[in-house]
This record gives sequence, structure tokens and C-alpha cells, in this order.
Amino acid sequence: MSLSDLLLGKPLKSSDERAECIGPVTGVPIFGLDALSSAGYGPEAALTLLISLGAAGLHFILPITAAIIVLLTIVYFSYRQTIAAYPGGGGSYTVARENLGVTAGQLAAAALMIDYVLTVAVGISAGVGALVSAFPILLRHTLELCLAILLLIALINLRGVREAGKVFVVPTYLFVASLGFAISLGVARALLSKGHPAPVVAPHPLAQATGIASAWILLQAFASGCTAMTGVEAVSNGVRAFREPGAKNARLTLTIIIGILIILLAGIAYLSNAYHIGATPPGQAGYESVLSQMIAAVAGKGIFYFIAMASILAVLCLSANTAFADFPRLCQIIANDKGLPSSLASRGRRLVFSQGIIVLAVLSGVLLIIFGGITDRLIPLYAVGAFLAFTLSQAGMVMHWRRHPGKGSTHSMFVNGLGAIATLITVCVVLIAKFVEGAWITFLLIPALVLMMKAIHRQYARVGRELASNDPINFTATKPPIVILPVASWGKSTKKALAIASELSNEITVIHIQVGEHSGKDLEERWNEFVVAPAQAAGISVPELEIRQSPYRRILTPIVEIALRTAKRHPDRIIAVVIPELVEKRWYNYFLHNQRASVLKAMLYFLGSRNIIVVNVPWYVEAGG
Amino acid sequence: MSLSDLLLGKPLKSSDERAECIGPVTGVPIFGLDALSSAGYGPEAALTLLISLGAAGLHFILPITAAIIVLLTIVYFSYRQTIAAYPGGGGSYTVARENLGVTAGQLAAAALMIDYVLTVAVGISAGVGALVSAFPILLRHTLELCLAILLLIALINLRGVREAGKVFVVPTYLFVASLGFAISLGVARALLSKGHPAPVVAPHPLAQATGIASAWILLQAFASGCTAMTGVEAVSNGVRAFREPGAKNARLTLTIIIGILIILLAGIAYLSNAYHIGATPPGQAGYESVLSQMIAAVAGKGIFYFIAMASILAVLCLSANTAFADFPRLCQIIANDKGLPSSLASRGRRLVFSQGIIVLAVLSGVLLIIFGGITDRLIPLYAVGAFLAFTLSQAGMVMHWRRHPGKGSTHSMFVNGLGAIATLITVCVVLIAKFVEGAWITFLLIPALVLMMKAIHRQYARVGRELASNDPINFTATKPPIVILPVASWGKSTKKALAIASELSNEITVIHIQVGEHSGKDLEERWNEFVVAPAQAAGISVPELEIRQSPYRRILTPIVEIALRTAKRHPDRIIAVVIPELVEKRWYNYFLHNQRASVLKAMLYFLGSRNIIVVNVPWYVEAGG
Repeated sequence: MSLSDLLLGKPLKSSDERAECIGPVTGVPIFGLDALSSAGYGPEAALTLLISLGAAGLHFILPITAAIIVLLTIVYFSYRQTIAAYPGGGGSYTVARENLGVTAGQLAAAALMIDYVLTVAVGISAGVGALVSAFPILLRHTLELCLAILLLIALINLRGVREAGKVFVVPTYLFVASLGFAISLGVARALLSKGHPAPVVAPHPLAQATGIASAWILLQAFASGCTAMTGVEAVSNGVRAFREPGAKNARLTLTIIIGILIILLAGIAYLSNAYHIGATPPGQAGYESVLSQMIAAVAGKGIFYFIAMASILAVLCLSANTAFADFPRLCQIIANDKGLPSSLASRGRRLVFSQGIIVLAVLSGVLLIIFGGITDRLIPLYAVGAFLAFTLSQAGMVMHWRRHPGKGSTHSMFVNGLGAIATLITVCVVLIAKFVEGAWITFLLIPALVLMMKAIHRQYARVGRELASNDPINFTATKPPIVILPVASWGKSTKKALAIASELSNEITVIHIQVGEHSGKDLEERWNEFVVAPAQAAGISVPELEIRQSPYRRILTPIVEIALRTAKRHPDRIIAVVIPELVEKRWYNYFLHNQRASVLKAMLYFLGSRNIIVVNVPWYVEAGG
Repeated sequence: MSLSDLLLGKPLKSSDERAECIGPVTGVPIFGLDALSSAGYGPEAALTLLISLGAAGLHFILPITAAIIVLLTIVYFSYRQTIAAYPGGGGSYTVARENLGVTAGQLAAAALMIDYVLTVAVGISAGVGALVSAFPILLRHTLELCLAILLLIALINLRGVREAGKVFVVPTYLFVASLGFAISLGVARALLSKGHPAPVVAPHPLAQATGIASAWILLQAFASGCTAMTGVEAVSNGVRAFREPGAKNARLTLTIIIGILIILLAGIAYLSNAYHIGATPPGQAGYESVLSQMIAAVAGKGIFYFIAMASILAVLCLSANTAFADFPRLCQIIANDKGLPSSLASRGRRLVFSQGIIVLAVLSGVLLIIFGGITDRLIPLYAVGAFLAFTLSQAGMVMHWRRHPGKGSTHSMFVNGLGAIATLITVCVVLIAKFVEGAWITFLLIPALVLMMKAIHRQYARVGRELASNDPINFTATKPPIVILPVASWGKSTKKALAIASELSNEITVIHIQVGEHSGKDLEERWNEFVVAPAQAAGISVPELEIRQSPYRRILTPIVEIALRTAKRHPDRIIAVVIPELVEKRWYNYFLHNQRASVLKAMLYFLGSRNIIVVNVPWYVEAGG
């Protein structure tokens, strides 16, 4: 069993692929983790903005949450329609591209890609926030913990999406159950005590008010709270991954996710108000997350507290997994439209798109390092991308219904239009409210990504035009190749390469570059015996031997020079450079050989003559050939 | 001008190589920086051990330094003889290998390699120690500063050894001049004041004694102080880099280096005693290096102080350069003896061994990160390697004189024997005194490295035996190849590859893997027009077209399967898989193409059939062919 098998799992056979499809029970964890876990940082992000208002700030969390829930409901109905209209999946990118044009599609794609990277970074940092709330001693290792979890998630995803789903079922349902239980218990106690429940463990005292409520602060709190809505688009992107009937399963999954999310958001807002729970300054000693305070206030710091916090930790960290499931799919769709390198379109081990996973892991790792793994610093970059994608997707749906008029299309157009307007307003609010704190980064990155996609698309188109041909081939123009065979010494791999060369051409030059006094002596002395006599006996033309001095011990440059010179002298011929290579069974022996062969090939290509081709002749070490 | 040219300098022509040779004036900075700069951390390392003795500790620095100087003198005379006897260079490795056998040579090589890595780490960390002494505000950025300087030095070295020499001439001589001036001034003042000079700026008060002098503490202080001797072997390793007459220039350079070093060590010991200067606890707030206190005490914290500290910073940081000049040379020599991968034996850009430079930079970067850039934590790992190499080299010289008896050989044998015994005792002292603090790491790493070299050597020997042949080639056994040509669509690059394939063989199968419904339709429909008719017109055998469904959108696996199946069906034939590749002029377009070609080649090799060869046919984008 190789190292990569151990870490990444055995490669799957093609025939296993259908088994990767999923239903609502596993669909909720896989595509809903991001949306559901938003409950772990969205309300806290809003409350953090209200810290400066002191106790007065808590009164505003209810209307802010109400506004977010209304927005969420609009977006939900909008996406229900998208799933029905686009069972092929692709989400915002596909919808925007098909209905609003290529640039709108690329804009949506860029927004979503950045959003996925932030989903990973925010999810993990918020999860670690829950961990350090339960164990304050870990606070100073925040960043290390974030990076370790990122690595773990990336490896799990490289093993394949189905196992990923299995891993996440238990924590997700545990999270929903324990948070639901805490909220139910808290609401019951609050109602029984007529709105003034006594906390089991007192939450942190609210800070003295240092400012007064202003429209600006409330706007900022709303903008931060909107991060609770990110991840809603995941289901519509991944419709294809669902078991048949895909659209129906996807809608059911989306309904479950949104329903749970609304209950969680409303419950957290109600309880933070009833129990007087505010946010604590993030990234400082004494930090404790809102949910940690809430569960402790409702149920005390007993076993239930630690179970609930563990499930929050797990779900928040693993919410990043939603992005890991969707980012590579999105990259594949864009790559198929030639907006990203085509290698992002190929399937890797275990039927998932490993390159996309690696790209996502690296980018979010960089973000975590830059922002020190502090959720609150990442929040301002977030949400812009998600809401821009929402807007474009729903605007696209409006165009879709205009083009496909029919029963109910006016109603559908109204629903999507409402969604588009509501989310467009939200984009503007978030951008303005968070511009200085970090939204400007997203604001610059999105167009930069679009320009990159356009440049890649142009280059593919240019190469496509250059290579296009509609004419038959002309076989008469080609002539037999001239072979150049560089050899270090006489041996079995040399003999194999020379024998093969003799089949490719009857003009062969064997080149030996002499770097020491004695190198190549046996070749020179016994050439007649080794090669000339057998060639004459076989009735084939005799290969030439050229021994070239290299006083400064360069080996590759003289070979390249000879190849280029030959190519120049015979512009109508193909020059085949035959390179013997050693292939080792064990990967750790890779570094022992062949560096020279790879460099030689790169040099031949780089210095470029169009009539040079490279023939690699492998020798399998230990297999004797 | 490309990015790599800008960073690494234009590649040098072979004919420029002789100009890389150096004389004593540039030789002292290049090969002496390590040895000379040891004055910056050796005495301090000894004094740090004496902190716990309080003021009483300072009395012991004079005898400890005297012992180190005696040892240094013995080693100097020993290495003078080595240079004369081995003008070809190679130092400890060559001497031990030739006289004591392969294992002794590998032991010396492993010791030296580890020592070079530590030279880099200790030099840079001590340099940064000087910097933070002058600007205490930088103390908390110690590690970042270390890594930035490491990167800078590595880049300078990738540009080539002569420029490296030029860069280091000014700071080295400035260091010698300013430290020499400070010592002269200090000694003069001390003598004038009858041994009780008044410091201009008072040094840190000495700590209260918390322990009493014991043989153990003095042994540890001596062991730490011995790090001042590291780097002495550099000249003998690099004799070949000197201008003719190499041995004479190398001996002159060594004499200058050792002479200066002895003056510096003696001066520092005398002044720290006279001015009551002790070490401060390393890595803690309030840290100030011994040299910083000494210069301030002698000359005040004026302009001279900052010039002197800047030269110490520069020289200490750049002392790492000695290792960068020598480590790759050592690797090359070992690689030539097949104890390391052969790629370490090849010359890179600018005639230096870039791979060795990169390996060294990475390893010392790891060390710096593990030990947080604190010199004092690195010191215990140091010196073991250097003194083990000294011992093996001098023991080897004793054997050398025994084998080459002649005039003065008995005297020479005595000098080297004395050196071998003295350094062997020192290895044991250092190992025992520092074992727990870190010498155990070196103690385990050296044999591990030796085992690795032996394993590499065995593998090369095995492959060499497997490939060895003393028989003529048999041309009659080979038959013409069968060509498999995978194509995505009809286009100019396909036509080029097919035309070339038609010259290599008259059995060609063109394979198209159908991933969508429409893919390959034009190929199928117009095959007769595109290929069959022209082939018949040219009178060559007609290539076959095979279109293969791939329901799960795999492209490479079916191609590999076809190749393997064909190879199995025709065990006596060569299967040539012709892969068209796109070559882009601009490096940043590299990621757009050819990933598939590389992966296909890797898969063909990995799944391995010995009669499959790979033919790469490049198409130069923008050059039209």
C-alpha cells in the first residue's frame, strides 16, 4: 500500500461513480453545513458591532435578525425556482451566463470563488473560536489550530465526496439537535419566567456603552449579520450530485436547511436578548463566543455544554467542507467553458477534482495566515461575493422567465425579481458598510479574477484558431526522421534505445559527451565490435558515433547544440532525439535518475526548433527492460 | 529579461568559468567569513554558560579562551599540511575517504553537511542578535528577520560565487578593522588604567551568582566556546577555487584567517574580563550581545558603535555564505562518488550548484524556525560535526604520511596525530557536555545521513550492475514499432503528429476518446477525406481510426488501457505512444496545456510495460509548428 493510497484512499473504478450520488439525508450535511453553521458566526458578527452600544445594543439584535430572516426567505423562494429550472446544476454561474451573457457569468463565478475561499477561512476560524471559548488556554494557538484543521479537511476531501458526507452526518445532526435543545430549553425558561430568566452560568457583563446607536452602526451590524446567509446557493450548484429525481431531492434538501437556519437565527436572537448575552472583543484574552455564553447560561457548563460546544466546533470547522464539495465543481464548469486551465476540468483520484481542492486549501490557508485566524477580521471580506452571486443569479432568472413565458412565469418572474432587488440592495449595503474594513479587497479581487478568466479564454481561443484545420493531411511532404541518441556508456538501456532507434530511422548518430579523460573510451574502442558488425550482419545502415569534448563538464548544452545544428542543416527533416530513461518501482528512488532527461527535454522545447521531437525510451529497473 | 534572469542573473557562458577563480584578497571573505565571524558567537556562547557564576565567572573566560586558542593553533598546522598534500581540495571527506575508507569518508561528509547547515542557522541568528542589540525594538521580530536574511543570501548565491565574493569583501574588512580598532583602543585604555578602565557606557550589571564554579560548568563553557573554531576547514575544501598556484594561495588565506581570529578571541576575552562584561540571558527582553556591550564600553554608543555593529551584523549574517560556497561543492564531490543523487553533481545557472544551495537554504530555514532564531538554542547542536570532521581528516592525514614516507613525513605525522587526538578529545567533551541540550540530535543525524548515503550508493551500484553489458547489440531481434496516437480533434497539431507517426511506422492507430455526444464526429465522418485518401495517394499503409466511448468522462485511462492491451498482444513489438504537445512561448501560459500529456506519460511509465515508448511531438504556439 503506497503512501498516497494511505492518505488519499485507493483510486475508485469508473464503475463506482454512480454510488457517489446522494439523497436529502446526506445532502443536508454536505450542502447545508455552510448555511447551517452560519448560525455560529452570523449573529455573533452582528453582536460584535453592537458591543460599543453596551446593554442598549441588545435591543437592536431582534429587528436586525428579523430583517435577515425576511431576506433569507426571499432568497429561499428564489433559489427553489432556480433548482427547478436548472436541474443540471451550476447555480449562479450557469444562470447568469445563460441569461445575462458571458461577462455576467464570469462575474458571478469570480464572486462565488472568492466566497468559497472565505467560507473555508471563516468556518474554520469560527470553529476554532468555539474551541478556545471552551478551553481558553488554547487562545494563543488560534492560528496553528486553524491551519491543522484546514489540512485535515483538505485530506478528507481528497479522499472523495461520499466519505466526506459520511464523516459529516453525525456532527451536523448533533449540532442541530443540541442547539435546538438549548434554544427550546432557553425559550421555555424565558417564557416561564415571563421574559426574565436567571442564567445558570452568568454571561460576561456587557461593556459600558461608549457610543450611541446610529444608522451607520446598525447598518454595519446588519451587513455583518448577513454572513449568516452565505452558503444558501450550495444546493443549487450541486443538483447533479443528487440521486434521481435530482431537482426534487435538491428542493427538499434546501427547504430543510433554510427551515432549520431560520429557527436557529431567531432562537439565538431571542435568547441573547432575554439572557443579556453580548459579544466579547475578538482576538483578546477573555474572549468567549456568543453561543458558548448562551449554552452555559441556559444549561450550565456540564456535560451537555461540552457536547454542544464539540458539535459546534465540528460543524463550524467542517462547514468549510461545503466549499470543498462545491469549489472544484464550479472550477470544472468554468474550465469546461475555457475560463480556467483545462486541468481543473479533469477528474483526479477518487473521482473528485483534486486540483480544485488543492487550490482552495492553499488560498484559504493564505487568508487564515494573513488575518491571524480571527473570524471578526475576515467577516468584512465575506458576504460581498455571496450576495453579488445571488443578485446575478436572480436577475438571470428574471430574464429566463421572460424568455420562457408560460403558466406561472409572471409569478416566478416577480419572485426572482424581488430577490434580485433585495440582494442587490444588500450588496450595496455590505460594500458601503464594510468597505474600509476589508470589503475593498473583495471589490478589487472580483474584477481581477474576471479579467484573468477573460485572458485565459482569449488565449485558448487564439490557440484554437491557430490549430484549426479543415484540410486533409499531406503525407508526401514528410521524410524519414534523423535520430540523435545521447548515451553515457555502453549498457543494456543503451542497447535497448539503440535497437529501437534503428527501427525509427536509418540515419542514427550516437553522441557521447566526454567529461573526463576516460569517459567513453570503451564506446570508442569497441564501437566496431558492439555496433558496426551487428548492423552490417543485420543488413541495416550503420549508426555513427560522435564523441564530443566538453572541457567545462557541461553535458546537456552540447547535445542541444548538436540537435539544433542538425535541425538547421536539414530543415525538411524531423530530428528525433531519443532519450533513455530509468523507471524505478519505488517513488523515493525517483530523485536518483532522470533529472537530466527531463531537463534535456525542457531545453530542447525551450530553445525550440519545430522539427525536433523527443522519444523517451524507458528502462524498468528490477524488471530488466 | 525574464524574472529568473532578474533574480538570478544571466546564465554564464562556459568560457567565463576560469574567471570565477579567486585569490587571497577575496578568498579571506569567501572562505573566512565563517571562521572570523565565530568571534561573534563563540565567546558569547562560553560567557552565557558562565552567567550563573556571576562576577566570579569572568575569571574563567581567560583560561577557557587560552585552551581554545591552543586547540585552534594545533588545527591550523594540521590543515596547512592537508592543503599542501591535497591541492585538489575536498577537505575532510576526501582525506578520510582516501586514507581511512569509504565509511570514514561518509562519516566526515555527513558531519560536515550538518555542520554547514548549522553554520548558516547560527551565523544568521547571531547576526540578528547583533541587530536586536542595537535596536531592542526589533527583538520580537527575531525569527522573521532571520528568515528574510536567509532568503537574501540564498538568492545572492544562486547568482554565482564571484559576485558573492564581491558583495562580502567590504563588510568583512570593515568588521576586522572596526573590531580590531575597538580591541586596540580597549586594551590601550585598560593598560593605561592599570587593568581597571572606566567604561564609556556601563555594561549590564553582572547577575548574582546562583551557582558555584564546577568542572562541569567549565567543561560546558569550553564546549560552547569551541563553536568559535567552526569554519576552519572551509579553505581546505575549496582549494580548487583558488587562482594558481592554488595550494600556496589557499595556505596564505588560511594563515591570515587564523591569525586574525586568534587576535579577536584573545582581545574579546581580555576586554570582557577588564570591563566586567558578561552575557545577558538570550531570547529575553533586555538581551544585549557581549560585543555590543564591549564596543559601547570602549567607545560609547556614537557613530563608531553603529558602524561596528553594522559590520558585525553584516559579517555574522553573511558568514552563512561560507557554507553556501562550500556545501554545494561538498555535495558535488559526494554525488560524484554516488553517495547523493547525481543531480547534485550537475552545474546550474551561473556555474554554481543551484540544487545544493536550495537544499541548504531549506534545511537551515527549518532549523531557524524550530529554534525560533535564538543562537543559544542552536549552539549545542553545533561543533560536534565540525570536530568530528577535524578528527577524521587528521587521522586520515596520519595514515597518508605513513603510506607516503619521505623527508619530514615523521614530523608531519606527529603534527597531524596531535591534531587528531586533540580534536577527538574535544568531540567527546562537546558531545558529553551538550548531549541533553541538543548534541543528541547531531549524534543521531550523522549516522542517519551515513546510512542514507550507503543506501543511495547501493541503489546506484545495483542499477549499474543491472544495466552493465559487455556484449554487442542484436539488431535482428527488433521489429518495427506499432504507433498509438491519441487525438482530441482534427487540427494542425494532429496533422503534424500523424505525419511524423507515418514515418515511424506503417501500423498506426489513431484513438479518439469520446466524452460528449458530438466529440469526434468530424473525425469519424471525414476520416476518408482527411486521412485515407491522402495515404492511398502517397502509397503508404492507411492509419486506422478507433473511437472509444468513455461514459464517465475519463480520457487517459482508456488510452493507457489500449496501449497496455496492444503491448500484451504483441510482446515482441515496440508500442510507440505519440503524444502531441503544445509549447507556449510565455511561461505563465504553461498551466494552460499539456498537463494531460505529462500525466499520460507518467501513467504509461507507472503502469509500466517494457515495450512501450513515448514520443513527444511539440507544436510551437505562435510559431505555427
